[in-house]
Amino acid sequence: MNIINQKFEIEYTFDIQFTNDLFKIDNPLLADFFRYHNTSNDQAKILFIIDSNVNKLHDQLQAKIRAYFETIPGISLASILILPGGEEVKNNSRYLEQVLTAVNNDGIDRHSYIAGIGGGAILDMVGYAAAIAHRGIRHIRIPTTVLSQNDSGIGVKNSINYFGKKNFLGTFVPPVAVFNDALFLTTLNDRDWRSGMSEAVKVALIKDKIFFDWLLENADSLRKRESKPMEYLIFKCAQLHNDHIASGDPFESGSARPLDFGHWLAHKLEYLTHFQLRHGEAVAIGIALDSIYSHRIGLISETDQDQILELLTKLGFSLSHPQLNQQDKLLEGLIEFKEHLGGQLTITLLSAIGIGLEVHEINTDVMKESINSLLQNYPD
Amino acid sequence: MNIINQKFEIEYTFDIQFTNDLFKIDNPLLADFFRYHNTSNDQAKILFIIDSNVNKLHDQLQAKIRAYFETIPGISLASILILPGGEEVKNNSRYLEQVLTAVNNDGIDRHSYIAGIGGGAILDMVGYAAAIAHRGIRHIRIPTTVLSQNDSGIGVKNSINYFGKKNFLGTFVPPVAVFNDALFLTTLNDRDWRSGMSEAVKVALIKDKIFFDWLLENADSLRKRESKPMEYLIFKCAQLHNDHIASGDPFESGSARPLDFGHWLAHKLEYLTHFQLRHGEAVAIGIALDSIYSHRIGLISETDQDQILELLTKLGFSLSHPQLNQQDKLLEGLIEFKEHLGGQLTITLLSAIGIGLEVHEINTDVMKESINSLLQNYPD
Repeated sequence: MNIINQKFEIEYTFDIQFTNDLFKIDNPLLADFFRYHNTSNDQAKILFIIDSNVNKLHDQLQAKIRAYFETIPGISLASILILPGGEEVKNNSRYLEQVLTAVNNDGIDRHSYIAGIGGGAILDMVGYAAAIAHRGIRHIRIPTTVLSQNDSGIGVKNSINYFGKKNFLGTFVPPVAVFNDALFLTTLNDRDWRSGMSEAVKVALIKDKIFFDWLLENADSLRKRESKPMEYLIFKCAQLHNDHIASGDPFESGSARPLDFGHWLAHKLEYLTHFQLRHGEAVAIGIALDSIYSHRIGLISETDQDQILELLTKLGFSLSHPQLNQQDKLLEGLIEFKEHLGGQLTITLLSAIGIGLEVHEINTDVMKESINSLLQNYPD
Repeated sequence: MNIINQKFEIEYTFDIQFTNDLFKIDNPLLADFFRYHNTSNDQAKILFIIDSNVNKLHDQLQAKIRAYFETIPGISLASILILPGGEEVKNNSRYLEQVLTAVNNDGIDRHSYIAGIGGGAILDMVGYAAAIAHRGIRHIRIPTTVLSQNDSGIGVKNSINYFGKKNFLGTFVPPVAVFNDALFLTTLNDRDWRSGMSEAVKVALIKDKIFFDWLLENADSLRKRESKPMEYLIFKCAQLHNDHIASGDPFESGSARPLDFGHWLAHKLEYLTHFQLRHGEAVAIGIALDSIYSHRIGLISETDQDQILELLTKLGFSLSHPQLNQQDKLLEGLIEFKEHLGGQLTITLLSAIGIGLEVHEINTDVMKESINSLLQNYPD
């Protein structure tokens, strides 16, 4: 009579579906989802949170959502909230408060749904609200940017920023469904179109040389905003991210975060530029830096390094930034990166194109030389 | 190229250990736990949050914790925070803020530990802080009351109150370990000693007639504060709760909450009395009411009903309260109970002593008669 062991498993499963014009009245995807998923006897409710940029660019969106939900039995539309997108919605907790207030006022319960439509930032915040209200409301993600459709919007994490620190509060809670709607890509500005592609470069570099070669071949078409190659890029990148989550350590209990290749610098640069630099733009610089560093410590050849820099440049990324001059401040990013995750410092580098390699030490002199090399070769 | 399925399982496991004087310098339990659990290469940190009542009653506790952690390799004590216990710590979010601030200031990361020492309320709040900071810090529960050692402190839920609603915010995140220290029971006042026993009555009623009979036999000893029967009560009750969590629906995705027998009224009474009524005291009244109701709708015999009321009375519970006169307000508790969980209204009643039964409708006339019966037979 001195010990009781508790042990159980929770299975998580959800689909990431690809479509065009999700809320078109005769698109059956969403209606089919609810027919299968909403098996409560009761009338379920759904609360929508829409990124204000998306709402502006798609002025029929709200009307289409209202019309669509008129046609679905067993589920009724509660409110539609329009909130700013971008990091602001994660920085200022009054937006989280607005979502929680809507949950309370609309009587959204644990068998109801909260759907977020927008970029990665608003989906992170909405996912967090859904995870903590009533200990978890069913959450649907409808990412609208390249970045969120191929990476940030399709995973199992959510968060807000707190104490001025990125993702200080958050949870690991999978959504019940993700819908990637290609229609939203058509209205992206060039920066958002481009910046999401850096995560595809990243995942190709650490996992899939064939995908890297494809990216290099198709870089010009991608830059010229051809839709077919972009749809393939998003699908392939989402698939690689998704497989990684399932096969590894989905809730990140260990120290490794191979998917964060190039990200220690990116997170720091985003903060130092007050998020003037987009996440994907910062990641492109982070990838360039850690590839140069990988070459300089003898892990990859100069040819490999140059191919990586060539691809990033062809896709239209700037590989430098005035903030790169603040080297000591940047290197603090390594400590913050470790602190957020805990445990040992673990940074992913490359041992070849297509193969990531974890290291637990960074030579700061070589890292500073690598930063200088970016500053010299890619003057801002 | 139109669908990707995500599917993975997460295994959760932790031990509930029973001991006496956990922080006694030669008690190896905690040191052994860290030797086994803390396999990071790094020096881990631990942050303690202690219920101010416990801290007052055990004035050597902080010194003992400091001395104990001097002896454990690989782990260092960060801060010790003293916060009020009871519902206040869940009602006012500045206490949550204090824990998060300590996490930030002390550099507590995802491989560090947060330990809560106190009753169910403070453990709920501390568990919530641990669940959301850095997307989840390792969390150790050290419950100090009968109620928290046998029920609220050993499970997988955490929460705070928000919008004036109990447990409006929270998550399902299991702790990494629970330590039930019998030493803390010795300093409980009579109300806290008694009130935790109602959860044992509850779980016996819905799951285990033999345990119910044991409770009836030992009611006098339990009321007289004999330690051996209380230790058995806590162990047995913790085991039944624990088995239920593992075998059922640990994160409560369905509509059923059989463990909440007697709780719809209890939650409402706690609020209406501004938590002057302890949770366990309210649960005793809730059990009495739902047992009377179970009899009146023909589910259990009068003998069974009377045995239940006899046990609760023998243990020293009051089975009435002036707030029982506010019948319409009380019945709102049924709606709120459903809303928190979502889906169909699901209330557990009894079909016999030892067997719970879920129903989806409540006859409000019969429920009101049952409330009147309590008011008449147990004048406050």
